[in-house]
Amino acid sequence: MIGVYDSGFGGLTVLRQLRAVLPERDFVYLGDSGRAPYGGRDTSTLLDFAEQCTERLFEEGCRLVVVACNTVSCVALRHLQTRYAGPGSERRVLGVTIPAAEAAVAMSRGHIGVLGTARTVASGTFETEIRKLGPHRVTQRAAPLLAPLVEEGWEATGIATQAVAKYLEGLEDVDTLLLGCTHYPLLASAFEGATRAKVLDPAPYVATRLREWLVRHPEFDAAGTGDLRVLCSGDPAVFAEHGRRFLGTELPKVAHVAEEGGRLQHRERVQVVLGQVLR
Amino acid sequence: MIGVYDSGFGGLTVLRQLRAVLPERDFVYLGDSGRAPYGGRDTSTLLDFAEQCTERLFEEGCRLVVVACNTVSCVALRHLQTRYAGPGSERRVLGVTIPAAEAAVAMSRGHIGVLGTARTVASGTFETEIRKLGPHRVTQRAAPLLAPLVEEGWEATGIATQAVAKYLEGLEDVDTLLLGCTHYPLLASAFEGATRAKVLDPAPYVATRLREWLVRHPEFDAAGTGDLRVLCSGDPAVFAEHGRRFLGTELPKVAHVAEEGGRLQHRERVQVVLGQVLR
Repeated sequence: MIGVYDSGFGGLTVLRQLRAVLPERDFVYLGDSGRAPYGGRDTSTLLDFAEQCTERLFEEGCRLVVVACNTVSCVALRHLQTRYAGPGSERRVLGVTIPAAEAAVAMSRGHIGVLGTARTVASGTFETEIRKLGPHRVTQRAAPLLAPLVEEGWEATGIATQAVAKYLEGLEDVDTLLLGCTHYPLLASAFEGATRAKVLDPAPYVATRLREWLVRHPEFDAAGTGDLRVLCSGDPAVFAEHGRRFLGTELPKVAHVAEEGGRLQHRERVQVVLGQVLR
Repeated sequence: MIGVYDSGFGGLTVLRQLRAVLPERDFVYLGDSGRAPYGGRDTSTLLDFAEQCTERLFEEGCRLVVVACNTVSCVALRHLQTRYAGPGSERRVLGVTIPAAEAAVAMSRGHIGVLGTARTVASGTFETEIRKLGPHRVTQRAAPLLAPLVEEGWEATGIATQAVAKYLEGLEDVDTLLLGCTHYPLLASAFEGATRAKVLDPAPYVATRLREWLVRHPEFDAAGTGDLRVLCSGDPAVFAEHGRRFLGTELPKVAHVAEEGGRLQHRERVQVVLGQVLR
């Protein structure tokens, strides 16, 4: 059973590709929709949320957690790996930025454009990872309106077309456009119409790389029956309703993970025995 | 000194009107920009944030706090009033929804449209307050993209025009359109172009009502020198840069209120004397 963590709906576009490439694996998806978007959170809060969600997925029985959200991958992945997946640990946490950078470098003739949230762009992580792999020029651009626009269901409107075109102004020189946010694949036709660059949704490549990784590391997950469970911290009915546009199919019944005092509830509450009196 | 609290920048459009109508009063504005937008927060978190910000403004020396944010006014005002401004209290917390409802009822011939955040609309507060005042028909509409669109600085683009028009579809019958979010006055020309209804920015009316209130309650604030201090929990440089579009003038130097472990820092930390040993 593989855990997939996202701040909300977007990671369902990644889950869709993971299930297509790994149809025999079981997945648990946790969307922290009750606290999304993460964009304006300070770093310590974001790390705290990422820890809570990762731990919850471990509690669900996952030994492998994939951080599907680009923002969390850019800002918090190394922290999560250090905390939970150090030497000797029986758990692993994987992200999406390195496979995305590899795919972009393989596709590009020299100039890669990266579109993402303000937080993703400010982190510089995509640029750093691309520079490790080649001498490519990288131009980043924050596109903070695109994810809310997709969440509003407006991806097929003229508003989406114009917003995408506006964000691509000045990026006429890029030959490969890396979609650095999991919401953007729903805007694929707007992107295709607005640029001559190749438009790269990294999710299929992330899925292929995960399949290869699982061959090398069979100890972290075993084949199952293609089962899917979905949890969210927001309203489960809203999550199911919006989520199907991202997953491309109906969601199974969505379970709710309540938040109390800034923390996600644990799967099983440990009952502390009170009242013991020392004599 | 009057405290003005908002989740971010938007309340500066209210502050602008308050200062125009009350030029001799001193103001302290607190924008909780580091934790904005509040939209996706659960109610307990929102109440907690509202308490922290209100308390911080009390610590700054304000006895009167105006909640400029429509979302917070709709969801948390009564809670804040009960907690801080009960019988015998020397403090008061005022909101924007009741003056806005009064202004809408005074302006409307019978059908009022209300545009706001999803949270504001879900609260039903505007509708409730309007129904207390008259037999008017009320049609609410959530417009979650408009505030981010204004924050992106796109209020004068065709994208804004189209988004506003899209949100007004089906509202052709309203004769008065109440702008139930402090970001929307920056979209005034887009609204004027998209509807035949009278477009109501309630902020000037909120300011007039506050002036009247102060005449009746002189004990909660005294005339000063028109001083303004601005605090925010996010990046002060970003706040100053974006804020001037909302305030309509340059901001004074913006001070930072740090957040630690989910709580705003207090103005003055009380040093606890440790090390006392009971013998």
